[in-house]
Amino acid sequence: MRLTVLPDDVTIEVNEGDNLLKALDQAGIVINSSCGGRGTCGRCVVDLVNGDIRSEYTKNKKVGQGQVLSCKATIHSDATVSVPNDGRRLSSHKVLINEVELDNPFDFDPIFRKIHLTLPEPSLTDNTDDLSRLMVELRKETGLDNIRMNLAMMRKLPRVLREGKWQVTVGLNHDGQQATIIDLEPGHVTTKYYGLAIDIGTTTIKMNLVDLTNGKNVASQGEYNRQQKYGDDVINRIVYSAEEKDGVDILQKAVIDSINTLINRMLKEHGIQAHQIYASVVAANTTMTHLFMGIYANYIRLEPYIPAASTPQCVYGEELGLMMNPKGLVYNLPAVGSYVGGDITSGVLSTQLARREMLSLLIDIGTNGEIVLGNQDFQISCACSAGPTFEGGGIKYGMRAMDGAIDKIQLSEGCDSEAGCEVTVSTINHKKPVGICGSGLIDTIATLLEVGIIDRTGSFVKSLKNSRLRHNEEEGWEFVLVWGKDTEHGKDITLLESDIKNVIRAKGAIFAGIRSLLKHMSMSVDDIEELLIAGGFGNSLNIKDAVTIGMLPDLPLEKYRYVGNTSLKGAQLSLTSKEAYNQVMEFAKGMTYLELSVGNDFMDEFVSASFLPHTDLTLFPSFNKKL
Amino acid sequence: MRLTVLPDDVTIEVNEGDNLLKALDQAGIVINSSCGGRGTCGRCVVDLVNGDIRSEYTKNKKVGQGQVLSCKATIHSDATVSVPNDGRRLSSHKVLINEVELDNPFDFDPIFRKIHLTLPEPSLTDNTDDLSRLMVELRKETGLDNIRMNLAMMRKLPRVLREGKWQVTVGLNHDGQQATIIDLEPGHVTTKYYGLAIDIGTTTIKMNLVDLTNGKNVASQGEYNRQQKYGDDVINRIVYSAEEKDGVDILQKAVIDSINTLINRMLKEHGIQAHQIYASVVAANTTMTHLFMGIYANYIRLEPYIPAASTPQCVYGEELGLMMNPKGLVYNLPAVGSYVGGDITSGVLSTQLARREMLSLLIDIGTNGEIVLGNQDFQISCACSAGPTFEGGGIKYGMRAMDGAIDKIQLSEGCDSEAGCEVTVSTINHKKPVGICGSGLIDTIATLLEVGIIDRTGSFVKSLKNSRLRHNEEEGWEFVLVWGKDTEHGKDITLLESDIKNVIRAKGAIFAGIRSLLKHMSMSVDDIEELLIAGGFGNSLNIKDAVTIGMLPDLPLEKYRYVGNTSLKGAQLSLTSKEAYNQVMEFAKGMTYLELSVGNDFMDEFVSASFLPHTDLTLFPSFNKKL
Repeated sequence: MRLTVLPDDVTIEVNEGDNLLKALDQAGIVINSSCGGRGTCGRCVVDLVNGDIRSEYTKNKKVGQGQVLSCKATIHSDATVSVPNDGRRLSSHKVLINEVELDNPFDFDPIFRKIHLTLPEPSLTDNTDDLSRLMVELRKETGLDNIRMNLAMMRKLPRVLREGKWQVTVGLNHDGQQATIIDLEPGHVTTKYYGLAIDIGTTTIKMNLVDLTNGKNVASQGEYNRQQKYGDDVINRIVYSAEEKDGVDILQKAVIDSINTLINRMLKEHGIQAHQIYASVVAANTTMTHLFMGIYANYIRLEPYIPAASTPQCVYGEELGLMMNPKGLVYNLPAVGSYVGGDITSGVLSTQLARREMLSLLIDIGTNGEIVLGNQDFQISCACSAGPTFEGGGIKYGMRAMDGAIDKIQLSEGCDSEAGCEVTVSTINHKKPVGICGSGLIDTIATLLEVGIIDRTGSFVKSLKNSRLRHNEEEGWEFVLVWGKDTEHGKDITLLESDIKNVIRAKGAIFAGIRSLLKHMSMSVDDIEELLIAGGFGNSLNIKDAVTIGMLPDLPLEKYRYVGNTSLKGAQLSLTSKEAYNQVMEFAKGMTYLELSVGNDFMDEFVSASFLPHTDLTLFPSFNKKL
Repeated sequence: MRLTVLPDDVTIEVNEGDNLLKALDQAGIVINSSCGGRGTCGRCVVDLVNGDIRSEYTKNKKVGQGQVLSCKATIHSDATVSVPNDGRRLSSHKVLINEVELDNPFDFDPIFRKIHLTLPEPSLTDNTDDLSRLMVELRKETGLDNIRMNLAMMRKLPRVLREGKWQVTVGLNHDGQQATIIDLEPGHVTTKYYGLAIDIGTTTIKMNLVDLTNGKNVASQGEYNRQQKYGDDVINRIVYSAEEKDGVDILQKAVIDSINTLINRMLKEHGIQAHQIYASVVAANTTMTHLFMGIYANYIRLEPYIPAASTPQCVYGEELGLMMNPKGLVYNLPAVGSYVGGDITSGVLSTQLARREMLSLLIDIGTNGEIVLGNQDFQISCACSAGPTFEGGGIKYGMRAMDGAIDKIQLSEGCDSEAGCEVTVSTINHKKPVGICGSGLIDTIATLLEVGIIDRTGSFVKSLKNSRLRHNEEEGWEFVLVWGKDTEHGKDITLLESDIKNVIRAKGAIFAGIRSLLKHMSMSVDDIEELLIAGGFGNSLNIKDAVTIGMLPDLPLEKYRYVGNTSLKGAQLSLTSKEAYNQVMEFAKGMTYLELSVGNDFMDEFVSASFLPHTDLTLFPSFNKKL
């Protein structure tokens, strides 16, 4: 039985009764469903061109005539479906890696090293065994006690020492507690060796291949996390992992596959062998770390929200199936709690927030929003479930920052005119508009608020005579950003009133989080000396817009600093400096985790922040000035 | 093609060209060859009854008419061979485990423990992760820092804690440097758990299954080391391991198979599961330890005689394929040098030689002879290659202490008479005589020396008219101990003059070793306050006989003490007491290893000791008295 997918015109063999979503996956068409194929998010709707495809769920979800919900559909004849690229489809386009440089205060001292040793030759009067002979010299060279050797190396040792005529090159890793010899080569070996810094985001995975002989970046790669098809955000992933058979294993395999694809790409490009990668440092949110390690994550989701391990111990590459030296160590940066993970402690490391006098607020907005407030004296953190809004989740034409995503708009005069105003949109890579990404959403709402098309509650001002503002039966009021004739898929790209409410919820959660941390420390926004913006948004977030809608505090713009992907940076610092690794372990222990669901403070703040920009306009003096 | 083996009347299928020795092995007939099938020892000769069996080697080795050297023979038709039980065949009879009780000065504190913990239940205000929650309580309970958990347990942890309602039973091993959680069960689990103490001798393997909840012995088993078919002594084993393809792996498999057979027997007998065995402590000579671990051992044999590792690090049961919990640790007791192994440090532990004021000499005579001299202030050790003589190697009718082995003789009057004297022999288990074991050899030579049938050089007094004393073309002079009509196999059991010379070489090496140690410390035999006799001989060695032939020093018999298998005992002490394990590690570090091949002292002593009892009779005052 054959399934053809348009517009790609890809045909694959399927069996009677096969699930359509899985079949599409096999055909290489990855649909950005957010519920993990449980039939609830409605994002995997495809157009049925011909054939017998039966959907058990169609009645419950709103899908148009001639459409099916692919996760709940089965194939019963040769069939053709069309999956238009309207932002629901994950393009295989590479994740952009544009980075901000941060100072590296650490000396180069990687967690894996190759060390050349010259051993005294044994004799009848110096008949120490090979292992002790090696250890004595290694101890002198490294100052480390208690170095171990695995059995495979034990077995190699006598021949290697003699082949190298008592010159030997030792590969030594150190997991923070214990150093272990994982490689032995005769002679003085000068081949290069490498490590990986990996940032596993809920949405994207980014990594750097680092030359551990000098600390330099050899290659960088990014890719979507293949777990996405099992759920858009951490909660949906956890649900999938807990409720589906072998769910944890499936999710683990997905993320390992993603990572291995990237590694493979870098290795090929540079002619490097997998076994030359001797260490990997991973920074990820707590859920991603659990699933990467294959650890049951369900209690992260259930009150009282307990991770299995904030700091999982180091494991060997082979235990996870990573494409690297099988005995090379994989380090996970430590989490503070269920929703403040290794990606955040990594950010604290790379910004050195906890080593500075200045009071800083670090905000990392990815699929979740995590916030750290602190300086050298204290650090307190919290997580606010911004949800996947800024990555396109829950927004009709929402999408990630991919080709064709609207990231900025401009309005002409005439908002209150029958003809409607002109909307000029800018898109990523100047492609025909497909949808709207996170920074585009913020910019759009800020702009519509400023010109008075939406009011402070986030409702459209329906009295306006703008022809772009219209009501549709199914979804209520919407504002047309781009007419169908100008879009990639021929449909109007619109912003729904419900989209605006979703953005308000997300931005309100972030602002309420900031206020809750400050309140807990009896501080006010004015005490903040520096605001560090990290994460997925990178420097595409327009801070002025974010202040306008009340997501970020109304502070002088010069207090804001983009710090880029601090999660990846911290992983790389830890890879190339034992001191950095030790620091991040310490930071995680010292940092307070404020559970926002305890007490009413957060909820009060959240309600107050559910306006544009806020109920209390004294907090947003710039906004007052504008009006 | 079929091969039938007599007198067992076993028939197996073989292929054209199959090696006869290997075919016999398949048929379950294990021949005690000492050269490892290299055609040099001549011990695997079998009688050809019928069929086409071709032996390429028959010309070089003396084999009788109708006999073939099975290691060098191939099968070319249906055939029948006879393998008489004349001591060359390893009977499957169990190794005797008759043991001497020694004091156990250690408190019960096993290296593996199961610990029951009650954890505080988490809440929104106590939201520590599961791993930290567990570690806090475990640290309180054990006082240990830096406890680890392997990935499999990490994955189990969240469900186990909740299933047990925050009651958990933790299996914790400790390798002397690091404690690791290798088992987690919900609730308070009271199932028994076990450990193994294993003594791997070159010839025999003995082990105890120990209940680690109370330290009591549950079962004991012994068996021949299946490596024997690859060589009789450590040197032949090393040669085999180094020169044959996959030699190390083959020898490792053989010893692991031997051990697993014993484990399996004990488990079945007591209805215990393999995974309930959480720790194994192994005491063995250095070569046996290397081959047990699968480590290349060839440099033990080559000057300057360097082991790959005196103290190999702990490994998991699964790494060696042992029938036990896959993540249970296997501990090897530490060696001092290439020829003073973990069996000897184990002996020092079990005799507490290094903790006492009294100057002791510990002699362990197995396939090799190892000697330790010392007290609480110093310990010095050496090894003298007694060779396999006392286990029957190099002796025409030599055999191990199995059924039918002569262990004692008595002569009637009339040694110088045509009729010959009467010889009354006692055999093990009162079976018909098959051959002569080590203690039998010593007793026979001592007796023949005392009555004047052999002189102090070890030659027969050929002028005697005793009809038991005869000359044979092939092998020279011999003394008939038992006439063929009274033996199991119908052949006369005789002692050759060359057998006597071999015994003299072996006993001379031991005595020269003792003297070398004393000389090195500027001491004399009279300084020795206690002589501890350990090892294979057990208490079957007649000390008076051993003194008569000059193997042991001529000291008052009350200074001698049989201490039995101190190697196995030390392993068990280490299993049931961390303090004991730490002690033996310390002992190994502190002990001096005297390499006898350095300088001329040992050779001079050896030459002087190559008489009965010695060239210097002032060292053997009792002998003087007898004459």
